[in-house]
Amino acid sequence: MIGVVAVLKVQPDKTADFEKIFLDLQNRVKANEPGCLVYQLTRSRTEAGTYKVLELYASQDALKHHGGTDYFKAAGAAMGPLMADRPEIEYLDAVE
Amino acid sequence: MIGVVAVLKVQPDKTADFEKIFLDLQNRVKANEPGCLVYQLTRSRTEAGTYKVLELYASQDALKHHGGTDYFKAAGAAMGPLMADRPEIEYLDAVE
Repeated sequence: MIGVVAVLKVQPDKTADFEKIFLDLQNRVKANEPGCLVYQLTRSRTEAGTYKVLELYASQDALKHHGGTDYFKAAGAAMGPLMADRPEIEYLDAVE
Repeated sequence: MIGVVAVLKVQPDKTADFEKIFLDLQNRVKANEPGCLVYQLTRSRTEAGTYKVLELYASQDALKHHGGTDYFKAAGAAMGPLMADRPEIEYLDAVE
């Protein structure tokens, strides 16, 4: 398994738009990707506009598939103008 | 739901002992805590001895229960001497 923590920084006045787009993406991921075991948007309690996505994938192939889907690419394009900074993505190896 | 990312820094020559203790804890959490939805130990790909635990709880009560179990306290005591630094625990609010 592979873990991902994605840090997303959103412009403070764009958070409602961002959450709507991301939750639609999250629903599509959960409906279409059996190899994506966890995909959950969370909101920082201390930094306004900062979100962390907690993700777990069954395999490297499942992670690669995720990033290549049309709905992921479309959501990325839609969220781009709402962001305050570039995403920070950390990949982690599950200990099993 | 509540998310947690726990950063645990382990002495480099103690990682095998740490992983054994933590995986035993992880198994107990999964077997005994229906309110803990995700509890996965992961290893940093870039910082030797650094681990991140990705966690999701159904509620604040479930998170509180987790920290109060005998097996959590026992694992914490057993891991203490293996650590290189204090744990950093971030609490996050799931966006739903």
